[in-house]
Amino acid sequence: MPRSRHNSSPTLADWGEDRLVAALTRDLPHGAEVLVGAGDDCAVIGRKRDARWQLLKTDVVIEGIHFLPDEDARRVGWKALCRAISDIAAMGGIPAHALITLAAPAATPVDRVKALYAGLRKAARKYDVGIVGGETSRSPGPLFLNIALTGWVERQQCVLRSGGRPGDSLYVTGRLGGSLAGKHLDFQPRIEEARWLVSHFKPRAMMDLSDGLAADLPRLAAASQCGYTIDEACLPLNTGCTPTQAMSDGEDFELLFALPARSATALEAAWKKRFPRLPLTQIGRLIPHSAIRTPYSHGYDHFAER
Amino acid sequence: MPRSRHNSSPTLADWGEDRLVAALTRDLPHGAEVLVGAGDDCAVIGRKRDARWQLLKTDVVIEGIHFLPDEDARRVGWKALCRAISDIAAMGGIPAHALITLAAPAATPVDRVKALYAGLRKAARKYDVGIVGGETSRSPGPLFLNIALTGWVERQQCVLRSGGRPGDSLYVTGRLGGSLAGKHLDFQPRIEEARWLVSHFKPRAMMDLSDGLAADLPRLAAASQCGYTIDEACLPLNTGCTPTQAMSDGEDFELLFALPARSATALEAAWKKRFPRLPLTQIGRLIPHSAIRTPYSHGYDHFAER
Repeated sequence: MPRSRHNSSPTLADWGEDRLVAALTRDLPHGAEVLVGAGDDCAVIGRKRDARWQLLKTDVVIEGIHFLPDEDARRVGWKALCRAISDIAAMGGIPAHALITLAAPAATPVDRVKALYAGLRKAARKYDVGIVGGETSRSPGPLFLNIALTGWVERQQCVLRSGGRPGDSLYVTGRLGGSLAGKHLDFQPRIEEARWLVSHFKPRAMMDLSDGLAADLPRLAAASQCGYTIDEACLPLNTGCTPTQAMSDGEDFELLFALPARSATALEAAWKKRFPRLPLTQIGRLIPHSAIRTPYSHGYDHFAER
Repeated sequence: MPRSRHNSSPTLADWGEDRLVAALTRDLPHGAEVLVGAGDDCAVIGRKRDARWQLLKTDVVIEGIHFLPDEDARRVGWKALCRAISDIAAMGGIPAHALITLAAPAATPVDRVKALYAGLRKAARKYDVGIVGGETSRSPGPLFLNIALTGWVERQQCVLRSGGRPGDSLYVTGRLGGSLAGKHLDFQPRIEEARWLVSHFKPRAMMDLSDGLAADLPRLAAASQCGYTIDEACLPLNTGCTPTQAMSDGEDFELLFALPARSATALEAAWKKRFPRLPLTQIGRLIPHSAIRTPYSHGYDHFAER
């Protein structure tokens, strides 16, 4: 792994993202009225008894990492805003206002930037988001497009990652895997589905699948202080995908949630009526923390045995 | 000027920032409860009669553009957050919650990122800002640090760029010019001064000076549909700076505001008592729009003659 040439400090590559984030978010100044800070899909701001809470999210897409230089800029703009909208959905909320930061090389064709904004606008119109400001800068490197998004959720419908309990059934919406074939640029954030879910059922924990089930499910389970077990044979696969791809490809932007097992039958029947074209699949359940050997892990290989 | 190799579209360099921003912000979906969208220091969200309005701001610093690779990362972190805080000050508001997006090369030393965060934390503590979340990503180019910041302001104390009237006196706080000698990394956003100002006097228009008086004053005047006249001999200069530097260097992060001329004497006396160590200087006044030949211009050369 590369080490810094300047001194003996380890590099970001040495540490990896999760260790870095854990170190950086330790002891952050919280400020007033913060109900949930770093670590969930969104930050939650408000007072405990407010009828509504505010949701805050920031998310970036970078050329060469999240999209390629020759990809359709309109779809890139769509993706950039929809990634953040998906995080609002994961809390059970409604998106409200977005701020756009665009950094691009001086030689970028104006038409490409206009196409990016056409994609942003299209997503904003579809999900009723106001684009209320932003910032443009020259980039000496690749194109960066950062979205800051606010939203809100009724106090009683706000779903965190941390509320799951042993025995809860685990569900995912849609199909998993193969997002790089194109879906990562065209996905539909599950706002409508999440809003229906939080108003008709009471998911105890929820998140959106951005890094793949193999990385994200352990995060939800850890936040809920649970273990988990999944049935690989049940995974809803996108056409041509293996279960391993469904676990690891990432960028599915589907919902993953935990629900009391007693509600499972009613949920499945009501879902089929309301969203007949979108699969909802029970993939496993949360189990007691003590029932697994590795309480928190990232990779597919470390999943608890059933 | 460079043109795209891919097609005949002009590039961002051909267009320049102001033309680009004007094109991108045309027809943006506004969303609900937007009192002020793109174009002022912050967006303003709320209903007309709410006692408080929310302020939203996003701002980025990029290695090689806003700071150099060998600059003290702690000071860079300070600057990144304080730039956004300065925009909240420019509305008369109080900063509240920040989200941080960091994109950095994999070979970045962990210590450098920790130092950036130490600077962010220091600014957050000083100005009572909660850092409530963020996003980290690998950058295939330079280091990017984006800040999304919320804040609030009492409805009656919110100051836009657009309220100035012909005859208003124009003031700047502090001294101008020479920021690149170091001040751009250590400046103090004028929260305390702006809060005092909006609660004791009624500035009609206000903004912070980020691009230099020569670029920023025409923006305030245009938003207020006024012309302006300044007295160069009055400009408060940082040590060793010429008036031209004071007009053009940028990154002063001082307040520029317009106030009814009848309040000038009272303001100056009260200011001297309250902030004895920080100069407040009347640099000119707003004049009728019709009194100037070029209603809106960017460069120093285009200033209206007195």
